[in-house]
Amino acid sequence: MSLLIVGSMAFDAIETPFGKTDKIIGGAASYISLSASYFTSDIRLVSVVGGDFPHTFINNLQERGCQTEGLQIRKDEKSFFWSGRYHLDMNSRDTLTTELNVLADFDPVIPDTYQNTDYVMLGNLTPTVQRLVIERLKKRPKLIAMDTMNFWMNVAWDELMKTLALVDVLIINDEEARQLSGQYSLVKGARTIMGMGPQYVVIKKGEHGALLFHENSVFFAPALPLEDVFDPTGAGDTFAGGFMGYLAKSRHHNFANLKRAVIYGSAMASFCVEKFGTERLLELTPAEIEERVHSFVDLVQFDIELQNA
Amino acid sequence: MSLLIVGSMAFDAIETPFGKTDKIIGGAASYISLSASYFTSDIRLVSVVGGDFPHTFINNLQERGCQTEGLQIRKDEKSFFWSGRYHLDMNSRDTLTTELNVLADFDPVIPDTYQNTDYVMLGNLTPTVQRLVIERLKKRPKLIAMDTMNFWMNVAWDELMKTLALVDVLIINDEEARQLSGQYSLVKGARTIMGMGPQYVVIKKGEHGALLFHENSVFFAPALPLEDVFDPTGAGDTFAGGFMGYLAKSRHHNFANLKRAVIYGSAMASFCVEKFGTERLLELTPAEIEERVHSFVDLVQFDIELQNA
Repeated sequence: MSLLIVGSMAFDAIETPFGKTDKIIGGAASYISLSASYFTSDIRLVSVVGGDFPHTFINNLQERGCQTEGLQIRKDEKSFFWSGRYHLDMNSRDTLTTELNVLADFDPVIPDTYQNTDYVMLGNLTPTVQRLVIERLKKRPKLIAMDTMNFWMNVAWDELMKTLALVDVLIINDEEARQLSGQYSLVKGARTIMGMGPQYVVIKKGEHGALLFHENSVFFAPALPLEDVFDPTGAGDTFAGGFMGYLAKSRHHNFANLKRAVIYGSAMASFCVEKFGTERLLELTPAEIEERVHSFVDLVQFDIELQNA
Repeated sequence: MSLLIVGSMAFDAIETPFGKTDKIIGGAASYISLSASYFTSDIRLVSVVGGDFPHTFINNLQERGCQTEGLQIRKDEKSFFWSGRYHLDMNSRDTLTTELNVLADFDPVIPDTYQNTDYVMLGNLTPTVQRLVIERLKKRPKLIAMDTMNFWMNVAWDELMKTLALVDVLIINDEEARQLSGQYSLVKGARTIMGMGPQYVVIKKGEHGALLFHENSVFFAPALPLEDVFDPTGAGDTFAGGFMGYLAKSRHHNFANLKRAVIYGSAMASFCVEKFGTERLLELTPAEIEERVHSFVDLVQFDIELQNA
């Protein structure tokens, strides 16, 4: 089924304890699209880049099934740029530079060919732009998921509440969930957030895994214990891409299938962090992904029926 | 099967964001024994208390199947006392007071009736005392597990290495695993620690669950997402008691059974944090424990065979 993806496409410069990059490809929509492309070949991309953004990357996405009619290329302007530095624990990072450039006045265009989209993933952007996308779709999609961040809670709370009321799934990290809900307990926090609109809340905890909440049910997927996390940039977006890509592929969105989607999202994220930027996501094979998913099965599988054996 | 438990029995005074206690019963051996008593009724306790320690608690342990011939009661001395304060995240705590009292020169006595013990849990104590217990057992037990802490790594490294070389299972938290191994990655850290002696390493991550390592296998058990963690004191010891109690009950210690033991340990720990001190552990029913274990099954269970449904 079709998946519409909205988000930034950007340049990142990253420093980790393991090394440092020049400007490399980044941005939420880049990671989400690459990750989702392993599950569905009907992806519709909505984003904006400057004339400096490499055509090779756009061509690569097209070859993976991404329609790019909704990707605005502003020839005389510059792409969004972010640079940051991670510390040893990889859970916190310092932003060194943020240059909005083309993203400053982004007005998302939904081409006619993008109408009748089944699934929508709204990457982190201003809540107003996220809502504009929903409003510009003539037919309500089967499932809309969104990401957001603390910044919008601080500067655009009312807009964020309006957008949240329109979506089915919110995918955020633990710190964001705490700020959004005003609750330290993630269990209480998820309940508060479900009261704002989404029926499903996914709370990502980085190396500590992810929680999926729906009504009174909770599902937990661990992160795969890795020898090293090389670069966590994009891991959350890669999770979202795998999550929504899996749903688009499997055509269901009941709780049981969302649980599987969390596992696939976690598997994709576990690849993302193995190399800098999008590098690892460009070279995966379906067999590697299945093997990684089976590692998750092994990691959490136990047979409690045999307790008295 | 029989389980020998060595550790402190103490008074604690605890402050959390939810409240504050006067002196209440604490100590590693208290939590381990209570927790294990739900699984096996052949427990052999080795510890030391002062004349101030309540007989009612000792009687309670006896009624639960704990033999106390190895519990030294020094009438004219005072029991070990610890007080501490937790912050909102409950992952860090400040120690306000530590009074060793009877623990300062603890020389563990192994009564003849304790010989031929099947399983041994060495709670956190000086590595020298832990090793003395092992040496004073005439027959090698089936499985020896131990806990330790950063303090011993700082002040008694060589002694700790000698003791570690004698045990089968090390149960520690993530921060301790990092210090002991000198590795930030827990995967690499566990491998380094297995090189020091233990065939199995359990790394507890508090609210983020626990990892079990053996050779090249890893198992992960989440912590149950709770509305509130009321008081984390003793959660790690309660985990160890459930873990070893389950093994003693089920009489196996292959990897599959150690995985189940981790789940039972996690279930017991999830009760411990619901009230102050040992309060919740005194009132559990077997039905509650089974129900809690089933919550763990629900929490992590997914069916990936249906991926293309």
